[in-house]
Amino acid sequence: MEVISGMKTELIFTGTELLLGHVLNTHGQYLGIKLSELGIEVLYHTAVGDDWDRLRGVVRQALERSELIIVTGGLGPTTDDLTVEAVADVLGIKVVLDRKTLDSLYALYRNGGRAMPESNIKQAYFPEGAVILPNTRGTAPGALVEKQGKIIVLLPGPPFELTAMFENSVIPYLNRRMSGRQVMRYKVLKLTGISESAVQDRIKDLGGRGNPCIAYVARLGEIQVRVAASAGSPEAAEKILGDLFEKVCSRLEEFAFGYDDDLLEEVLGKLLKESRLTIGVAESCTGGLIGSKLTDVPGSSEYFKGGLIAYSNEVKTKVLGVPPQTIEKYGAVSRETAIAMAEGVRKLTGSDLGLAVTGIAGPGGYTEKKPVGLVYVSLSTEEGSECLEYRFPGKRAGVRHGAANAAMNMARRYLLANKSGRKTGESGS
Amino acid sequence: MEVISGMKTELIFTGTELLLGHVLNTHGQYLGIKLSELGIEVLYHTAVGDDWDRLRGVVRQALERSELIIVTGGLGPTTDDLTVEAVADVLGIKVVLDRKTLDSLYALYRNGGRAMPESNIKQAYFPEGAVILPNTRGTAPGALVEKQGKIIVLLPGPPFELTAMFENSVIPYLNRRMSGRQVMRYKVLKLTGISESAVQDRIKDLGGRGNPCIAYVARLGEIQVRVAASAGSPEAAEKILGDLFEKVCSRLEEFAFGYDDDLLEEVLGKLLKESRLTIGVAESCTGGLIGSKLTDVPGSSEYFKGGLIAYSNEVKTKVLGVPPQTIEKYGAVSRETAIAMAEGVRKLTGSDLGLAVTGIAGPGGYTEKKPVGLVYVSLSTEEGSECLEYRFPGKRAGVRHGAANAAMNMARRYLLANKSGRKTGESGS
Repeated sequence: MEVISGMKTELIFTGTELLLGHVLNTHGQYLGIKLSELGIEVLYHTAVGDDWDRLRGVVRQALERSELIIVTGGLGPTTDDLTVEAVADVLGIKVVLDRKTLDSLYALYRNGGRAMPESNIKQAYFPEGAVILPNTRGTAPGALVEKQGKIIVLLPGPPFELTAMFENSVIPYLNRRMSGRQVMRYKVLKLTGISESAVQDRIKDLGGRGNPCIAYVARLGEIQVRVAASAGSPEAAEKILGDLFEKVCSRLEEFAFGYDDDLLEEVLGKLLKESRLTIGVAESCTGGLIGSKLTDVPGSSEYFKGGLIAYSNEVKTKVLGVPPQTIEKYGAVSRETAIAMAEGVRKLTGSDLGLAVTGIAGPGGYTEKKPVGLVYVSLSTEEGSECLEYRFPGKRAGVRHGAANAAMNMARRYLLANKSGRKTGESGS
Repeated sequence: MEVISGMKTELIFTGTELLLGHVLNTHGQYLGIKLSELGIEVLYHTAVGDDWDRLRGVVRQALERSELIIVTGGLGPTTDDLTVEAVADVLGIKVVLDRKTLDSLYALYRNGGRAMPESNIKQAYFPEGAVILPNTRGTAPGALVEKQGKIIVLLPGPPFELTAMFENSVIPYLNRRMSGRQVMRYKVLKLTGISESAVQDRIKDLGGRGNPCIAYVARLGEIQVRVAASAGSPEAAEKILGDLFEKVCSRLEEFAFGYDDDLLEEVLGKLLKESRLTIGVAESCTGGLIGSKLTDVPGSSEYFKGGLIAYSNEVKTKVLGVPPQTIEKYGAVSRETAIAMAEGVRKLTGSDLGLAVTGIAGPGGYTEKKPVGLVYVSLSTEEGSECLEYRFPGKRAGVRHGAANAAMNMARRYLLANKSGRKTGESGS
């Protein structure tokens, strides 16, 4: 990733809900990380409500003191969405209709079989001369305006839409603008089934306190290790980065499921597609989370047949066919029950792989021997069944996401081993 | 909710780590909620790094436009902790040593069996005339300065220390200062199954552009309408708010599932618990999302038995018992299939209620007659089965969350009707 310092940057977050505390503002952190990876230093954050005068005042001030200004929120169809008009007003440029955006808004509604509400027309107006940034996850496009050496970027408020637009449109643009300056490169290794401190213990002797630099980010069920390096040329930065990153990867191989923007469910889906194998899931403590993640991926119907949310013991025995005496003898949260669930769902859904999770998500339901965080994950295939035991730290959400990712990772590792096995076989034949 | 307009307030967050994204800024949300409970309306947030000139600039600006200014962070012992000196400098007052604070710092270290590092002496200096706010959870005391009708509050950066100090010292102070002021009240209505623009179309003639004021927030599968009103007394503000809020609610009744901090899965869970009824889910396009949401709620095992993720037609027919000819004749995405799924899962899981979703989440899999966003939601009970058709706007995530919430809302509305029905019955008996 390419970077420049020297570009004075500030972020403006719009929305009265931010000031009232109804919504936790995560844009500052996300954009701060992304921009520093690009080598861009943010000097100010400002949050302001949906108020015409105050919003214009904040934008005016930003134009006076900064070169790159990113404004989030206020691109919706309602009358309290003022960003486009306020920015155009301060810049002294007109707001004009973008025919192409309007057509695609009409098409979006038409394809949905509905008439577009008149208020949505507003979302097709932009400051004159703006580059329109497509919104792959919502209706409101963003915009990028360059005027008098300043860059103003307007992004939608919903984090899900903002991150996609920033990564698809803004980062490539900023990369182009920044070329020739001091360059930073970074790479992210994504891990599951290991804690942040355990990750750190494994690699702390590798250095990474200056340039190159190692940083850690904990997400639900996932730890990210980011390695960054700066140099005078992309090649030099990549060399420094590559040397350290390789060492980091080799220390953490067994927990690593992907790089950069990889999602575990996408990585697993790709492997399933390549292997032409199908999967079914039996979920107790995750309650549908694995199925939900797998089906977040477009096209997942190719390899995901379905699954059972076996929350009660009755569903585990009657529908999945877990023998009641297994639950009686070993408990619902046990290696034996997990294996029976995985085998059961494989048969039930007619899938090649059966994946099962049973555990204690908390806050209740635990015993001294079976604490909150204890999870069994099992994979059943035509070759037999395996089971892994985990003890996840944290609260309910952490345990559930940890368990879901551990299960998906178990299937991923099986497919990977299987693939390389088959490849060896093929090359030998 | 009590809020005061009239006291212009802004928050300043100091710390370069905030701008770099190393730390998620949660102060804005915490203070926003607490201040609006006190009736104080926040107009701006600003985050700025540990930079002498920029920090002073931000404080100077705040003094020009606000009456109450809360500054967080920068009270530590290191050289990049500049808040006390910067604020004193802008206010034109001296920084003086507080003997009592210094003694207690020495005592703190002595009791810990260590010598106090010299750098900590800095933490005993405050703007002259400041009220010193004890820190019950760390070494850095806070401070409160009143000058020329302005109030400046300095709080430590660590959330754990900040919240204790705010609650122990600042809230009582502000309560005293605020008596007799203009008060704001607000209430949030939470909706599902309707788009933001359609919400606005239904209520735009009610006004709400000034006082009282209506605002909209879109979340995945959810629209929030916030109504706020200000007046000279809590009673008067509540009256103005209540009159408009009631009208808003009556226009949107069929889509409303809760108020303020309500989560749909919690509202539904509470109703199921009260009714002593259990629920099972059959999910096609939502792929486990409903189960995942329901089991996000601790204690959900009381009413949630489980469900089937029926992603493939094979699972729909073989496990759920949807007649193959139903799918053949009407399609997997149809009213008839949805009803058969709901009835099937009710039987399969032995639940009182069976809830089913089938639809086109996109981006692929659509036809002209069955566009992306078309979703059937069905509820099966001992009294029979019902089905609703939805056309959700947006992309895959929007459709899936919209569908999950619409399904949960269908069950919620049934339980509510059932409850009031039973109540009537009881009173008649």
